[in-house]
Amino acid sequence: MEAETQPNQLTDAELIERVDDALRLFLDRRFVSSLNDAIEYSVFSGGKRVRPVLCLRSCLAVGGDLEKALPAAVAIELIHTFSLVHDDLPGMDDDDLRRGRPTLHKHTNEAMAILAGDAMLTYAFQVLASSQVESDTLVKLIGWLSAFTNTMIIGQVYDTMGGYSEEMDPIEQLRETHSSKTGALLHASIVMGAYVGGATDDQHTPLAQYADAIGLMFQAVDDLLDVTQSTEKMGKATGKDAGQGKLTYPGLLGIDGTRAEIDKLLSRALEALSGFDAKADPLREMAQRLATRQH
Amino acid sequence: MEAETQPNQLTDAELIERVDDALRLFLDRRFVSSLNDAIEYSVFSGGKRVRPVLCLRSCLAVGGDLEKALPAAVAIELIHTFSLVHDDLPGMDDDDLRRGRPTLHKHTNEAMAILAGDAMLTYAFQVLASSQVESDTLVKLIGWLSAFTNTMIIGQVYDTMGGYSEEMDPIEQLRETHSSKTGALLHASIVMGAYVGGATDDQHTPLAQYADAIGLMFQAVDDLLDVTQSTEKMGKATGKDAGQGKLTYPGLLGIDGTRAEIDKLLSRALEALSGFDAKADPLREMAQRLATRQH
Repeated sequence: MEAETQPNQLTDAELIERVDDALRLFLDRRFVSSLNDAIEYSVFSGGKRVRPVLCLRSCLAVGGDLEKALPAAVAIELIHTFSLVHDDLPGMDDDDLRRGRPTLHKHTNEAMAILAGDAMLTYAFQVLASSQVESDTLVKLIGWLSAFTNTMIIGQVYDTMGGYSEEMDPIEQLRETHSSKTGALLHASIVMGAYVGGATDDQHTPLAQYADAIGLMFQAVDDLLDVTQSTEKMGKATGKDAGQGKLTYPGLLGIDGTRAEIDKLLSRALEALSGFDAKADPLREMAQRLATRQH
Repeated sequence: MEAETQPNQLTDAELIERVDDALRLFLDRRFVSSLNDAIEYSVFSGGKRVRPVLCLRSCLAVGGDLEKALPAAVAIELIHTFSLVHDDLPGMDDDDLRRGRPTLHKHTNEAMAILAGDAMLTYAFQVLASSQVESDTLVKLIGWLSAFTNTMIIGQVYDTMGGYSEEMDPIEQLRETHSSKTGALLHASIVMGAYVGGATDDQHTPLAQYADAIGLMFQAVDDLLDVTQSTEKMGKATGKDAGQGKLTYPGLLGIDGTRAEIDKLLSRALEALSGFDAKADPLREMAQRLATRQH
């Protein structure tokens, strides 16, 4: 037995450190300094790194090598950050505050926020294309990342502008919006991590089911916190979605109904992992933690 | 000898038709209809298709198969269109008119223009990743496309916000801005077309030199037309760059000096192709035409 820590015994904090180191390395003086500053301001802003950690945990759950999943984890976090920066723009949600700090367009200016978002989105593909993974795998990863990113953008279109048929059940509209807006990138994290980790065909479907369940759950918890928490605790404006007339879980199901929905989705996520051994325990714990998070 | 037209005898109009057909096929009901409409509004707006035609011509100049270069040509045109849509945004250049029609954010709204730009940028990589080219080549193409796109974005940062050292010669600042802002994507078009076309190592450097020369020339002509043509003829606001205090060729070199610069760059472009046979004639003609274009 080796003395060093087995990758699967790494804590989330340790995984986040690996992700942050990789992000720092990939971003180091990559762009002109003003653009670099803008990107680093957004990327290193105390985000929880849910997606890259899921990507690495998914890789480890199928017995894969952590290092191989790092470029995918970095690429996904860049996509996530780009989406936040563009969502906050005056032409979109017009938010001044994100994680307790001024949003990028407030910190710099609108042009810089548009361009920094574009650069992060573009750079995600460059990070993947330059990684030391064999080409067939890379092409698959790049295909997935682009497809899931566009699913996320479509979710954003629905969330911002609507567009569902009037006959569609509002709760179905909500699920559809969230499974694309939030779920797609969580799904990408899990699927990409599992793939570079060497998942077998029969492992992919349950992992995708796990991803879909926590994607919906994540958003239900977000909606719940939006109505139950203060702005101070959340580091961003709360109660805003309801004020804008957006569909939310508490708005449609009430607070208790939303809690029941979260429980149901948590059970579904855990059920999906029933065929996995202890290497998937961190994914199980992650689902538990995402269900009960307070910010 | 075959009865059908040899690819190299295709006119630009015929190549543009091939590009448009491919764009239509790739975009057909790909997104939710409002997003699809927004993207198609921007993509099919009478653009000259300079980049995709260069990509196909470059492939043909080295004896390659036109079909293989089509996905790259489509991807590059999507990137170009995304960049125009975002450049026109109120937070950037704030333009109401593009090619004689309302810009996308005027035609729809700002959120849609931001999201449609993001979707086109993302989709460019999906188009490449899904194309029938072997994986090693694809990874190279995707790496180039992402790198050149980010060079373009950096050029946009300089163009919008400055950032050069004060000691730097203004004409050098101008060349640097243009070679990234406009040149990078023209460069990508040529390099990617040549690569999928099977260019030999000693063909790549002169083609890259040709690309760099026409990149600068393209922008010098744009600057010249901006001061000599009417808004009506250009289909967008003219005289605007000078009004905004941006560096321009006529502003630094005068109108005659700009014409001399254009001639010099045209000679350099043609010189770069001196080792190529008649298959490169369309590239030579294209340089001539770009130097003397009136809109």
